[in-house]
Amino acid sequence: MSEFDIIREVFAPLGASAREDTIIGIGDDAAVLAPPPGAEIVMAMDVLNEGIHFPVATPAHAVGHKSLAVNLSDLAAMGSRPLWFTLGLSLPDGDTDWLRDFAHGLGSLAAEHNITLVGGDTTRGTRSIAVNVCGAVSPGRALTRGGASAGDIVCVTGPLGEAGLALDALNQPASYSQAEIEILNQSLNYPTPRVATGLALSGIASAAIDISDGLAQDLGHVINASRVGAVIRVADIPLGDVYANRVDEIGYETAVTFGDDYELLVTVPESRLDQAISAVVATSGTLVPIGHVTDGSTVSFVDSNGRELPVSGGFDHFKSN
Amino acid sequence: MSEFDIIREVFAPLGASAREDTIIGIGDDAAVLAPPPGAEIVMAMDVLNEGIHFPVATPAHAVGHKSLAVNLSDLAAMGSRPLWFTLGLSLPDGDTDWLRDFAHGLGSLAAEHNITLVGGDTTRGTRSIAVNVCGAVSPGRALTRGGASAGDIVCVTGPLGEAGLALDALNQPASYSQAEIEILNQSLNYPTPRVATGLALSGIASAAIDISDGLAQDLGHVINASRVGAVIRVADIPLGDVYANRVDEIGYETAVTFGDDYELLVTVPESRLDQAISAVVATSGTLVPIGHVTDGSTVSFVDSNGRELPVSGGFDHFKSN
Repeated sequence: MSEFDIIREVFAPLGASAREDTIIGIGDDAAVLAPPPGAEIVMAMDVLNEGIHFPVATPAHAVGHKSLAVNLSDLAAMGSRPLWFTLGLSLPDGDTDWLRDFAHGLGSLAAEHNITLVGGDTTRGTRSIAVNVCGAVSPGRALTRGGASAGDIVCVTGPLGEAGLALDALNQPASYSQAEIEILNQSLNYPTPRVATGLALSGIASAAIDISDGLAQDLGHVINASRVGAVIRVADIPLGDVYANRVDEIGYETAVTFGDDYELLVTVPESRLDQAISAVVATSGTLVPIGHVTDGSTVSFVDSNGRELPVSGGFDHFKSN
Repeated sequence: MSEFDIIREVFAPLGASAREDTIIGIGDDAAVLAPPPGAEIVMAMDVLNEGIHFPVATPAHAVGHKSLAVNLSDLAAMGSRPLWFTLGLSLPDGDTDWLRDFAHGLGSLAAEHNITLVGGDTTRGTRSIAVNVCGAVSPGRALTRGGASAGDIVCVTGPLGEAGLALDALNQPASYSQAEIEILNQSLNYPTPRVATGLALSGIASAAIDISDGLAQDLGHVINASRVGAVIRVADIPLGDVYANRVDEIGYETAVTFGDDYELLVTVPESRLDQAISAVVATSGTLVPIGHVTDGSTVSFVDSNGRELPVSGGFDHFKSN
């Protein structure tokens, strides 16, 4: 199956339901696109490599979903509306079945978010997926990492740590029931980009980031960019059922340090917290306060008694009590 | 060297000389960009994989140049002005020297074309470079593959085939002098994206494509998209000195079928050919007529006597006489 066959047969349908602002889509040297009048363009590129970002055994449909989801998550973290994406796909061979499943996973999520595939490249190589997404935001309304102020409330948009437990379950399947493993794999393979939540928080939140590298590390990016500190109440971090059932045993370390959940971490001025929660709930999302911003320069994680928890060597000994 | 170290130390300088239309560049979840008022956005992504698109021994500086050049070539083929790019870089390890040389090659070409790195991803994996470029074009002025009409003149912007000879020289170094090998490697490793030429031809040319897969194949894309045919006078195809010195021996096959030259193939209405050539020469480029568009549906390659040359199995027996 040649590169041109792949483009035509598998990916052309993804661009077929083109947005009206797609003047020229797949099939020329480049796409030609009409940006929304007066809007700013938001752009991000994330790469997923087999064996690094997803286990080799990951279903192709999930790889398709996730490769777009992690990028939509970046658009969400900026409070922007998805527009277009390009795809750079390296494959070891013309594995038609893999490719069709991949395209279905990618296409389903793209349709859900009304984002159109407008071009890219399919080529031979170790399996690797590069996706470049573009979104739109009203001028000056993009959510950044740098806007948090002392007193702001730190919130997350959903449970953390289940993607991390999914990898633990790969190594120790006997520790989990089959039903639990399915729930965890869903979290790992099919993260939900919080696009509607990000849009709802545009103009309300003071800062935002998506949690791809773990709460601790990504919160670190926010406090560094904002030149503030933060205190996180570990017991307030939302957990899924599988995690909650074993948190007494395993503690909060995975929820705090493991990434791949793609929830948003946002800061909201305290006076606008109710407004923020209402706006998010109106889009069927959730917004859970887990701490606050300080005028310091570091992050403290505290237990329910306000006692600071030890943080050493990447939270190696991070436990809830 | 962590991903964050790589981003900061090597790539941040590439985004430092940010264009004024880069509102937020490297360092947040996504870039925020102000599109030129009233312009359309042109977007393309090409991926280069080590061992597939460039030999393993290729200097990192050349890989950096070429990974951007092949994308700028797509912007050129649309007649658009470069604006921004993102970079998805997979590396087997944190090879700092390789990375710095790569960044220098990339940065030099970026500076030359005033295109700014605004984001991307650096990660572990088999060495692979995905670049997504954005350009601007006045509404309706993009050059496409689909605008050629019968009677138009087919032109190319420079010599073809030397990138192909460079690979031949890798396999048969004894057939070439050291000076010739250096010239050929320059053609292969440092293709010149014809950005100024593409811009000069916007509004004049009827169709354009960049020659990445070879004249025969890329001209095929133009005639299919335009629903026309073409006749190419093989002896008029411009050749570099190294190629010209052995064309009697090796024929035109490499110039016709091998890609990687990244010259533009354009069609120009006959009445505007002089205007097109003048516009290109004014940007220090060249525009060489090599044939014309017909009302057929196939491409013929003819010798200097107008006799059709045999085309069999991908031009296996393609000779000049």
